[in-house]
Amino acid sequence: MSGAGKLFGVGVGPGDPELLTLKAARVLQEAPVVAYFAKTGETGHARRIADACLGRDTEELRFDYPYTTEIPKRSASYRDALRSLYDRAAEEVGAVLEDGRDVALLCEGDPLFYGSFMYVNDRLAFRFDIEVVPGVTAMSACWSRAGVSMARGDDCVSVLAGTMEEGALLQRLRAADAAVVMKVGRHLPKIRRALDRAGLLDRAVLVERGSMPEERIVPVSDCRGGEAPYFSLVLVPTARTAS
Amino acid sequence: MSGAGKLFGVGVGPGDPELLTLKAARVLQEAPVVAYFAKTGETGHARRIADACLGRDTEELRFDYPYTTEIPKRSASYRDALRSLYDRAAEEVGAVLEDGRDVALLCEGDPLFYGSFMYVNDRLAFRFDIEVVPGVTAMSACWSRAGVSMARGDDCVSVLAGTMEEGALLQRLRAADAAVVMKVGRHLPKIRRALDRAGLLDRAVLVERGSMPEERIVPVSDCRGGEAPYFSLVLVPTARTAS
Repeated sequence: MSGAGKLFGVGVGPGDPELLTLKAARVLQEAPVVAYFAKTGETGHARRIADACLGRDTEELRFDYPYTTEIPKRSASYRDALRSLYDRAAEEVGAVLEDGRDVALLCEGDPLFYGSFMYVNDRLAFRFDIEVVPGVTAMSACWSRAGVSMARGDDCVSVLAGTMEEGALLQRLRAADAAVVMKVGRHLPKIRRALDRAGLLDRAVLVERGSMPEERIVPVSDCRGGEAPYFSLVLVPTARTAS
Repeated sequence: MSGAGKLFGVGVGPGDPELLTLKAARVLQEAPVVAYFAKTGETGHARRIADACLGRDTEELRFDYPYTTEIPKRSASYRDALRSLYDRAAEEVGAVLEDGRDVALLCEGDPLFYGSFMYVNDRLAFRFDIEVVPGVTAMSACWSRAGVSMARGDDCVSVLAGTMEEGALLQRLRAADAAVVMKVGRHLPKIRRALDRAGLLDRAVLVERGSMPEERIVPVSDCRGGEAPYFSLVLVPTARTAS
């Protein structure tokens, strides 16, 4: 659309505000409007990370995720509520762009890797000019903090969801040279069992809140508890050793 | 070691100097000594990316990769030459650290994800204080430039090496919801065949030199040629569509 603003999908990285890229910092300083998703009643993780980069007069568009205490996350009504949220976000962001102003949509980590940005992008890509600014992923921050060598040479790395059924998880863990398990949360005991059955328990590390002040790094074999916090992931670094 | 300097493994990102993190830029500005690997006769990719961040008086330690025109890359003598190179790098970097000065070792992309930094880290981790500064990976830069949504929801993403045998590559492509194939180079025709057999050819995109000035993005189905440049990878984004 001629005369329209440009949409930036800006990866703000894993949590430490110093892990924004120079480009993300510049785009946020210049953007007249920033948009972000957040849980109701909270500042919003992406918004908090970007805080120091925003200008004094930056306009903000905030979109609240549906309450998950009232609706189960895997229900059709939750999916409907999410769809309405993304529809509304695309509509409001689109209106600002049509007005000729640029919008920076903040994304934790990297926008096109499990980010909410994609759902706005889906809805606006055919109408507006869009640029994605990549960010440091949570997994990169976690293995950097843990100091583990994730992948070398011709290694295959699998990024898996902790929500998977145990058998499928086991099969994929067995096939990988190195693995990252995302969405750990209440699935930790199942993930621990699958790692044990795959013979990978001694290599597995749990990183909670990587690069954030409350960070905690523990071998999965020491995790006797039942649950990990939301920002956690399990790393299985390569077994390949030094050259 | 008390009184010793600290080693920083600094991810400088995929190529665009603006994709360094604020932290990487600060660490490089402050470092009295930077070290890096480079091909003989070239500036070195990591060194070029970091150029604008280095101070005027920064000391440089440069380590040249063995010539691959004279020795085949998969031979034992190439591996020996690499091992000597990493031994020497660790020794020289270690000497500066023992002297009480910090060293920043530059790494393309992210240090612990297929980076040469790991081989120096292996040799020095037990003697010195080491901090890894994560960086934006080449794959994040490539999918951001291509504007493809890589992974959503509970997707499993596989990072594969193009050097793999065709049958193994095919099997892993079939098992993944989304995939990245690294080390494309002269393996492009084989990768293209495996993608075709896996029914993924229509989703696959080749990104050459992502985020660099000579960047080129083409559907793999349009790649009739035999070879891709060194900095290339193939993306197979998720088939999952909008929420």
